[in-house]
Amino acid sequence: MPRDRGNVRRRMREAALELFLEKGYDGTTAAEIAARAGVTERTFFRHFPDKREVLFNEAELHARLDAAIAEAPPRLGPLEAVVWAFQSLAPMFEENRPLAEPGRAVIAQTPALQERQLAKTASITRAITEALQRRKIEPALAGLAAVTGMAVTGHALQAWVQDPSLPLVEHFEQAFQALKQLSKPAPR
Amino acid sequence: MPRDRGNVRRRMREAALELFLEKGYDGTTAAEIAARAGVTERTFFRHFPDKREVLFNEAELHARLDAAIAEAPPRLGPLEAVVWAFQSLAPMFEENRPLAEPGRAVIAQTPALQERQLAKTASITRAITEALQRRKIEPALAGLAAVTGMAVTGHALQAWVQDPSLPLVEHFEQAFQALKQLSKPAPR
Repeated sequence: MPRDRGNVRRRMREAALELFLEKGYDGTTAAEIAARAGVTERTFFRHFPDKREVLFNEAELHARLDAAIAEAPPRLGPLEAVVWAFQSLAPMFEENRPLAEPGRAVIAQTPALQERQLAKTASITRAITEALQRRKIEPALAGLAAVTGMAVTGHALQAWVQDPSLPLVEHFEQAFQALKQLSKPAPR
Repeated sequence: MPRDRGNVRRRMREAALELFLEKGYDGTTAAEIAARAGVTERTFFRHFPDKREVLFNEAELHARLDAAIAEAPPRLGPLEAVVWAFQSLAPMFEENRPLAEPGRAVIAQTPALQERQLAKTASITRAITEALQRRKIEPALAGLAAVTGMAVTGHALQAWVQDPSLPLVEHFEQAFQALKQLSKPAPR
């Protein structure tokens, strides 16, 4: 997306998080977010269908993952393709990092958003499954690779939050290695 | 649990599913479920905290998984322990199999229950993570093993629904093999 467009979007997300933390998620309107970000309400709704999307950024993640899985080298197996796709989004995760902490705080204080978070995970897993099927992976295996790839990604992101001294791609590598170790039978 | 207690519980679950399919989940009361199962409402509430639990059986699954993960042979790694635990519950899955299809139908027609289903998956994953930590697995790895173990289990259960000619434990074995294949690099 053009740089300006990205900046406006980012400004709205930051404004939204500030307001959610100040007044609670339910007490914040789209108009207030737009005002704080210095844009019109119409601009807000051009970027986000609702205030939930400001927080979850789900449509963007979907679109980017879809594209990335399609672009993953054909020689990669299904799980590798998922991990490759998430790794290719590392710059996005890095850019969004300052929003992740306040985002988690807002979600933690709003039960309805916790449900939404679970729904987001489920819907992204479905999107990945479908993207893998377009790579001619049969549905059940695509589903297994999608859930496992999400698990590896979650593991990598969590490790990265705890230890930002390593770059995110390195944490992905380590998470994938951890999974390989996990799926080996015990050596004893 | 004593056989009688198990039978009563089962009868209430069957009665509940019939009623949910006839009148909708929201239109069914605990009193109606008790009446159809030929028990008092008090008996109903001795078995289930609410009508949601009749459908999800979550407390029982939690308790059994907790016990099974604690009992898994110490030589098993974390992911193997999870798969071992689910495999040890195969008789329960087999016994519940006739309830699974109508259960899915009720959930499919009730959006609030779909959210509940996701919450159940998340809460069982957390319970497994905690049970693994009691086996001295560090938290992040326990989380990865829990999510991956849930993925393997989901894959096995889905394959079993589609092909009941193989026993469930065999489907678990195949799902675990599929995961191992997935986490190998592509051979090309």
